[in-house]
Amino acid sequence: MSHTLEILEAAPRRWELDLEEVAAAIDACWDCVTTCTACSDESLAEDEVAAMRRCIALCTNCADVCATAARVLSRQSFGDVVLVQRQLEACVRACSVCAEECAKHAEHHAHCAVCAEVCRACEQACRRVLDAEALAELRALAGG
Amino acid sequence: MSHTLEILEAAPRRWELDLEEVAAAIDACWDCVTTCTACSDESLAEDEVAAMRRCIALCTNCADVCATAARVLSRQSFGDVVLVQRQLEACVRACSVCAEECAKHAEHHAHCAVCAEVCRACEQACRRVLDAEALAELRALAGG
Amino acid sequence: MSHTLEILEAAPRRWELDLEEVAAAIDACWDCVTTCTACSDESLAEDEVAAMRRCIALCTNCADVCATAARVLSRQSFGDVVLVQRQLEACVRACSVCAEECAKHAEHHAHCAVCAEVCRACEQACRRVLDAEALAELRALAGG
Amino acid sequence: MSHTLEILEAAPRRWELDLEEVAAAIDACWDCVTTCTACSDESLAEDEVAAMRRCIALCTNCADVCATAARVLSRQSFGDVVLVQRQLEACVRACSVCAEECAKHAEHHAHCAVCAEVCRACEQACRRVLDAEALAELRALAGG
Repeated sequence: MSHTLEILEAAPRRWELDLEEVAAAIDACWDCVTTCTACSDESLAEDEVAAMRRCIALCTNCADVCATAARVLSRQSFGDVVLVQRQLEACVRACSVCAEECAKHAEHHAHCAVCAEVCRACEQACRRVLDAEALAELRALAGG
Repeated sequence: MSHTLEILEAAPRRWELDLEEVAAAIDACWDCVTTCTACSDESLAEDEVAAMRRCIALCTNCADVCATAARVLSRQSFGDVVLVQRQLEACVRACSVCAEECAKHAEHHAHCAVCAEVCRACEQACRRVLDAEALAELRALAGG
Repeated sequence: MSHTLEILEAAPRRWELDLEEVAAAIDACWDCVTTCTACSDESLAEDEVAAMRRCIALCTNCADVCATAARVLSRQSFGDVVLVQRQLEACVRACSVCAEECAKHAEHHAHCAVCAEVCRACEQACRRVLDAEALAELRALAGG
Repeated sequence: MSHTLEILEAAPRRWELDLEEVAAAIDACWDCVTTCTACSDESLAEDEVAAMRRCIALCTNCADVCATAARVLSRQSFGDVVLVQRQLEACVRACSVCAEECAKHAEHHAHCAVCAEVCRACEQACRRVLDAEALAELRALAGG
C-alpha cells in the first residue's frame, strides 16, 4: 500500500481537487512507469525482437511521461493547474498509444498483456483528474 | 559543445522535422533542467527563502517537464508526433510561468536572472518545433 | 496494488535474484519518490520554511535517486549487477540521510513523519536486495 | 553554450569543490543522456536489431543514471558529498560498460561511435570530480 493519499492530505496548501482522485492518478502513473520500463526491457529479450520495436519505443516514452505527470501531481503547494492539465494530456496520449500497441502482443507475451491493462488504468485515472469540474474552474481562474 | 545534432543525424529513421531545430530544443531543455535545478536549490539557501517559495516550486516542476521533453524529442524512430506536441506544450507552459516568476527576483539574485533567460530561450526553442508546418502536417496524418 | 511482481515474473530473462525482494524494493522506491516529492513541496509551504531547507533539499535528491534505482531494478534482461549494486548504495544513502532529517520534524509536521517512515522502509527494502548472497555471487562473476 | 558554470557560481552556498570540474561533469552527463537516449532509439530501428539488444539496454540505464548524477551535482546548498560520491560511482560504471558495448558497434553504426565517445568523456568528467582531493576531505568530514 502506498502512502500517497496520506502525504497529500498532510499538505498545508492543498489542490482544490479531489485528493483521492489525485492520489489514484499518482499511483497509477508509478505502476505504469514500472510496467512500461519492464515491458520495454522484456520485449527486448524476446526472440522476435524485430516485431517488438514499436512496443519498446512507445513503452520507453510512456514511462518518462507518466513519471513527470506523477511528480507534477505530487506538488500541490504552488502548483500550476494549467501545467497539470497539459502534462496529464501528454500522459493520456502516451498511455493510450502504448496500450493499443501492447494489446497487439498480449496473446503472445504476458508482459504486454499486463502492460496494456496498466496503461489503460493509468489513462483512465488521469482522465478522471482532467475531466473534474474543479480543474476546469481552476484553469479558468489561471487563464490557461 | 553537445553531440545532439550529430547523433540525431545518425538515425536510420528520422523525424520529418528540421533536425537543427529539434537539436536546438533538446539542448535548450537540458540547459533549462540544469538552471532550474540549480536555481531552485540556490533560492532555498537565500536568507529570504520565504519570498522564494513560488520560484523554488516552479523551477522544480520546470526541470522535470523539460527533461521529459528532451527525452521524447531524442527518440525519432517510432516517435509519436502527437505526444511530441503535447509534451512540448507542457514544456512551453512550464518555462513561461517559471521565467515570469524568476524575472521578479532577477535584480536581487543572479541565479534567477540566469534562470529567467534560459527558461525564455527554452520556451522559444520548443515553440519553434511546435510551430513548424511539418509538425502540423504530421499531426494531421497521425490523427492527433 | 501494483503489478510489479507480475511484470517481473513475465520476463524471458530474469534476474538471478529473489524477484519478490526486487519487486518490494521497486515499490518501496516509488512510494519514496512520491512522499519525498510531496514532503519537499509541502515543507516549502510551511510557515517556518527557513527551518525546513535541509529537509526540502534532501527530499528532492532522494526522490531522484530512488526513481533511478527503481528503473535500474526494473530492467532484468541485460542488466548489470554492478550497476544495480552502486545505484542501490546511492539509494540507501539518500534514504538514510533524508529519513534522519525528516524524523527531526516529525512531531511538528505529519508529512515529515510519513516521509521518514517511508524512507526507512525504502532503505531496508534496498538493503535486502544489496545483502542477498545472490547479488554478491553475481557481482563476483561480473568482476565488479 | 550551457549556463551551467554561471548558475553554479551564483550560489549563496557553494560546493567546496572545483566548480569548473563540477560544471564540466554536469554538461558531460546531459550530453551522455541525449546520446544514450538517441543511440538506444536508433539502434532499435536498425535492421540487425537482435545484435543491438545489449547496446539498447545499457544505453537506457546509462541515460537514467547520468541524469540523476547531473541533478545531484547541480544541488550545492545542502548537498551530501557521500551521496555525490555514490551517484558518481554508479555513473562511472554505467558509462564505462555502455562505452565498451557501443564501441563494438562503432564501425557499423555512426550513432554507436558518437555514443561510445560521449560515454567515455562523461566517465572521465565524473572521475575528475570523484578523484579530487577536496571530495575525499569532505567525505571524511561527513563520515561517509
